Amino acid sequence: MTEFIPPGTRWIDLPSPFPMKRGGELQGARIAYETWGTLNAARDNAVLVAPGLSPNAHMAANSANPDAGWWEPMVGPGKPIDTDRWYVVCTNPLGSCKGSTGPASIDPATGTPYRFSFPELSIEDGADAIAHVVRELGIGQLACLVGNSMGGMVALAMLIRHPGIARTHINISGAARALPWSIAIRSLQREAIRLDPNFNGGDYNDEHYPESGMRMARKLGVITYRSALEWDGRFGRVRLDSDRSDDEPFGLEFQVESYLEAHARRFVRQYDPNCYLYLSRSMDWFDLGDHCAQRGTDSRAHTRAGLAAIHIERALAIGAETDILFPLQQQQEIADGLREGGADAQCLPMPSPQGHDAFLVDFDRYGPAVRGFLDTL
Amino acid sequence: MTEFIPPGTRWIDLPSPFPMKRGGELQGARIAYETWGTLNAARDNAVLVAPGLSPNAHMAANSANPDAGWWEPMVGPGKPIDTDRWYVVCTNPLGSCKGSTGPASIDPATGTPYRFSFPELSIEDGADAIAHVVRELGIGQLACLVGNSMGGMVALAMLIRHPGIARTHINISGAARALPWSIAIRSLQREAIRLDPNFNGGDYNDEHYPESGMRMARKLGVITYRSALEWDGRFGRVRLDSDRSDDEPFGLEFQVESYLEAHARRFVRQYDPNCYLYLSRSMDWFDLGDHCAQRGTDSRAHTRAGLAAIHIERALAIGAETDILFPLQQQQEIADGLREGGADAQCLPMPSPQGHDAFLVDFDRYGPAVRGFLDTL
Repeated sequence: MTEFIPPGTRWIDLPSPFPMKRGGELQGARIAYETWGTLNAARDNAVLVAPGLSPNAHMAANSANPDAGWWEPMVGPGKPIDTDRWYVVCTNPLGSCKGSTGPASIDPATGTPYRFSFPELSIEDGADAIAHVVRELGIGQLACLVGNSMGGMVALAMLIRHPGIARTHINISGAARALPWSIAIRSLQREAIRLDPNFNGGDYNDEHYPESGMRMARKLGVITYRSALEWDGRFGRVRLDSDRSDDEPFGLEFQVESYLEAHARRFVRQYDPNCYLYLSRSMDWFDLGDHCAQRGTDSRAHTRAGLAAIHIERALAIGAETDILFPLQQQQEIADGLREGGADAQCLPMPSPQGHDAFLVDFDRYGPAVRGFLDTL
Repeated sequence: MTEFIPPGTRWIDLPSPFPMKRGGELQGARIAYETWGTLNAARDNAVLVAPGLSPNAHMAANSANPDAGWWEPMVGPGKPIDTDRWYVVCTNPLGSCKGSTGPASIDPATGTPYRFSFPELSIEDGADAIAHVVRELGIGQLACLVGNSMGGMVALAMLIRHPGIARTHINISGAARALPWSIAIRSLQREAIRLDPNFNGGDYNDEHYPESGMRMARKLGVITYRSALEWDGRFGRVRLDSDRSDDEPFGLEFQVESYLEAHARRFVRQYDPNCYLYLSRSMDWFDLGDHCAQRGTDSRAHTRAGLAAIHIERALAIGAETDILFPLQQQQEIADGLREGGADAQCLPMPSPQGHDAFLVDFDRYGPAVRGFLDTL
């Protein structure tokens, strides 16, 4: 999988051993990251972005790698996250196959990939790893901690486990706990991978690879990252040309099916199935309320208590009205809970049609929102 | 599959041969149905219900079968569809395995099940079959044609292909065309079935049955029939008792996963996979606009022209605000389009949390809505 680590990636070693929340520990683990801009003398102009499940650390072009990144319109000189002012850091998640240590990495104890011997991975482990990166980079306190999607969960876990690590927070399409509907979707994605005969209990290789399971899982991901509204405008009922359609019974016929197929095919060999399973499950397990002693029967109150235990100056939660995977109520919950903890916190609902993925495409809306928050710091 | 046809089912033979819209014809085909109440002398008190993909014709208890049906709270003496006043008919869809002729039925030409030799099935074929049932039952004109989900598509096709067949129409969670997002979901369900090695191009049997493919397809169905909002209240983050959870890595852990598993396991052996594929694809193909001569580049205007070509007295389109599969905009489109055709047509949005399935469970809302419409006829 090393071929998918972008040039210019840097690494910070985690403490060895690095203890994992649910048991076990990692030896010689490290976190991949990239930076933009310059840390000032006061060490107080750092903004860290915790991404979603699949991205690498190459969020935008920089001197080490001029290729455009996955959040290019958001990060750079004069852009919403303005690298003329901010020292910007992006980390690749612990458990990923795109630079940081994960199930596809070599276990130093055996010299072979961890696969299923990787310890159970939680959102909190990823949070602890990033907190270590922040300290190692010599950042006193993050001016702003930004978390997207899964990264929004990781950011909340950082804030509760490492008080004072950030002065402010932007949570984009994130959540303080996994909802059962989202768990159901992710569970089905994992089942598709596990059911593929080539998955072989995590012991696949390039020749015997769970291609069809990964393809199903990714298609389901892409579908639930978007919305019916957007796709109606984008694909309508356009059919494939007869020479591109599928001859076999029940084969591809509509443009939307072909789009999904192409998108999934690109992904399946670029993301390690075991890493996907581990990170997917870590989201299901996440509930910020588990960090508070008392657990009531009301799961909403439970989560809310976790949010209220976070103390930061200001926060902004942004969500898309068409997001079915991390629905807007979850970003509202984050803003309401952080306000209880004393933050000046707001929720900004976006009328973007692109669903959960809106922050990756609807820059006309997300750009000004992020810029507006950072400019007032 | 005959074991899944409820006792008390009756049949009406279709004309033989019965020509199919996309080519081919059926010999000796028939439609399963049940009735409630009595047709009056004027033959003008008939209400016909066209159900969704999976239900049989046993919508409610009757003298032939006292078992509760799948729409029991809606149909009966004094109920919203009041059988003291109305002569009520429910048909099982053409292509189903629950009574009507479909891919699991015996092809009289070979003495073996049709399987993939069944001709391509369209929504319109189902509509023509029901129109024949209406005539055979001696009904002059339906007082009201009710269609749920896929049945809402079938009902619209009946109205455009058989002008005058109904005086009024209730469309519940239906659509005048398949949206690309819904096509994507159904395409993925079909792919899960087709990828199961036991599917064997439709040539499976009870021993070698595409169990895991059907389970995946059904789970995806159940997930998309519901909503995140409802499941949060229903399942929250409750975990399984340790003796019910799954020991294998990445096995079942949350109640919502176990619910889905149980639900899917019940379904997979009670619905024929080939029938599922044929009916699922018939929905993807459906666009009422295809019945109008001119086809523009604007798919919304195209569909709207189809609706405006229907001429009935009154119509009610009901949809759930949380429906992601047949979203509310589609019921609004039906009401708007039928109004253009001259109908007194309204759309009634329901704040039900249960998504596409709301009409099967939220009787407190759907009961009065249906009753209110029928009472004024």
